[in-house]
Amino acid sequence: MNKFMKAAIKEAEKGIFNHEGGPFGAVVVKDGKIVAKGHNEVLKAGDPTCHGEIMAIRKATKKLKTINLSGCELYTTGEPCPMCLGAILWAHIDKVYYGCNVKDTEEIGFKDLDFYKRIENKEEFVNELNREECLNLYKKYMDIENKKSY
Amino acid sequence: MNKFMKAAIKEAEKGIFNHEGGPFGAVVVKDGKIVAKGHNEVLKAGDPTCHGEIMAIRKATKKLKTINLSGCELYTTGEPCPMCLGAILWAHIDKVYYGCNVKDTEEIGFKDLDFYKRIENKEEFVNELNREECLNLYKKYMDIENKKSY
Repeated sequence: MNKFMKAAIKEAEKGIFNHEGGPFGAVVVKDGKIVAKGHNEVLKAGDPTCHGEIMAIRKATKKLKTINLSGCELYTTGEPCPMCLGAILWAHIDKVYYGCNVKDTEEIGFKDLDFYKRIENKEEFVNELNREECLNLYKKYMDIENKKSY
Repeated sequence: MNKFMKAAIKEAEKGIFNHEGGPFGAVVVKDGKIVAKGHNEVLKAGDPTCHGEIMAIRKATKKLKTINLSGCELYTTGEPCPMCLGAILWAHIDKVYYGCNVKDTEEIGFKDLDFYKRIENKEEFVNELNREECLNLYKKYMDIENKKSY
């Protein structure tokens, strides 16, 4: 087994046995070395954003003192959900390796496919409101940023 | 203007003027009252996951002492990115209202469409690895959970 995936599985187990959240672990790797590990701490933290990948990314940005993790790879025991995939991209991580896919975990008993269905039909619960007023906010910000460049 | 969107804009401005991150603000509302506010703190926190919506959700779960925000609405100045939309769904938020859409902010100068293109082509950088070993992890977890039910 790949040694980084082995470390991700070990990290996932840590969370299970301490009842911190689901069995999901991840590690961030740079230049062949693990820079940060994370596991699902949703229950422990009482915070639904504390997935394993997010925890590992947060720790890696702190350790490397940068929000740009380009040059890094992420190993995770399960296919990243859209939240985690988004975080992976905002952090500029180059490559992701995952163990099980969403269908695998669904078959085992995790009920995540409902989650994916809601995302596919997001127009059912996501609506536009006060577009003009928000456009003004963004234009004002860009004016400030552009003035800084002079 | 909707009073909750007005509060989200005010929250976004707080972040801009303190140079904490981009001009993005959000509020979580329950029973007609604001329970939490958040704005982009990516630069301040040195953490790429600190978008306005995520900050507001984290604060709301702490305040309401639950990871389940059903019955809540979220008002945000910009269309939620996939990371934030994922967080919104994991938190079971019922409804989302956003000001500008992604094309609006792209036209103003935010370069987020590249981000969306990478997500659409995720097979270019996301790969499966050690599926069987990770399946064993999840099965082991389900065995523990199932034993608890007896």
